Amino acid sequence: MSIVGIGVDVVDLQRFAETLERTPGILDRLFTAAEQTSAKGHQLPTMSLAGRFAVKEAVAKALGAPAGMHFHDCEVSNGGAPTITLTGTVQAVADERGVTNWHVSISHDGPVAMAYVIAEHL
Amino acid sequence: MSIVGIGVDVVDLQRFAETLERTPGILDRLFTAAEQTSAKGHQLPTMSLAGRFAVKEAVAKALGAPAGMHFHDCEVSNGGAPTITLTGTVQAVADERGVTNWHVSISHDGPVAMAYVIAEHL
Amino acid sequence: MSIVGIGVDVVDLQRFAETLERTPGILDRLFTAAEQTSAKGHQLPTMSLAGRFAVKEAVAKALGAPAGMHFHDCEVSNGGAPTITLTGTVQAVADERGVTNWHVSISHDGPVAMAYVIAEHL
Repeated sequence: MSIVGIGVDVVDLQRFAETLERTPGILDRLFTAAEQTSAKGHQLPTMSLAGRFAVKEAVAKALGAPAGMHFHDCEVSNGGAPTITLTGTVQAVADERGVTNWHVSISHDGPVAMAYVIAEHL
Repeated sequence: MSIVGIGVDVVDLQRFAETLERTPGILDRLFTAAEQTSAKGHQLPTMSLAGRFAVKEAVAKALGAPAGMHFHDCEVSNGGAPTITLTGTVQAVADERGVTNWHVSISHDGPVAMAYVIAEHL
Repeated sequence: MSIVGIGVDVVDLQRFAETLERTPGILDRLFTAAEQTSAKGHQLPTMSLAGRFAVKEAVAKALGAPAGMHFHDCEVSNGGAPTITLTGTVQAVADERGVTNWHVSISHDGPVAMAYVIAEHL
């Protein structure tokens, strides 16, 4: 086993909420339809969206943050523990770097949401 | 070596302090007697208790957050570097998942305390 | 591969800015000349300095935080992904503990900057 990369991301909840409100279409650009709703089909609260956004950013950092990766190509779900499904541009970079497995954790409280990930090669 | 799981937790200090004040008995339910005091025997400041609570939550996440784990069964100490002692319900889950070693780090500043852990199998 | 240690550090931006303002000489004590400027030669904003400071603290924690390590001996740069260059006191401790490789990630938003590192032995 080797660690290919790690990533951390912290998101200020108020700034994130303001950006979502002010920028038409940004919700759909950042998140797939599935990511915008909970396992039970409810619209996710901003806090949870911020956590999922933090995962996408942390994954990008763990991959060296090359240009050209799309937000939809790292889809975050969390029925219980958070998991990610990579496709397209993001999977291509992960393959190129030899990433075969991911560890993901999310937390939010008070003013921030955050995520941390480890990309590993098994 | 393999990584069994990782966990991150962030705790808003003000909300944590308010919860401790408002909820009788919660201090004793979250922390063992040893965890409530410093190495020198002083009552720990809320900031340090929040850091220890974040470790417990991060450990739970690294173990997949199954039901039935008790807060007292992950005891956090930090004379210098933070260490954890698992017993009972938490040790049982760790054994089941093959965790043989833990890495733990805590930080607090401004509005938050946070912890991050790696559970590994050697 | 084995993980020698991990470290996390969170820095409150306002408190950090106030400390830099109030304490003559602290900027030069914490950061080398190269660390105080961006890749393009501009003075770094406080937010970025706080991120670099968080890396230094996280590296110290990953090494067990022994006494005698100097801030200048862990130099942080980030043209794209963040990297660290260890020298002197910090390299000596890293050698002693068998650290041969580092993973580093930084994030800042809203009230905080933070860093997380993994020290590994390959």
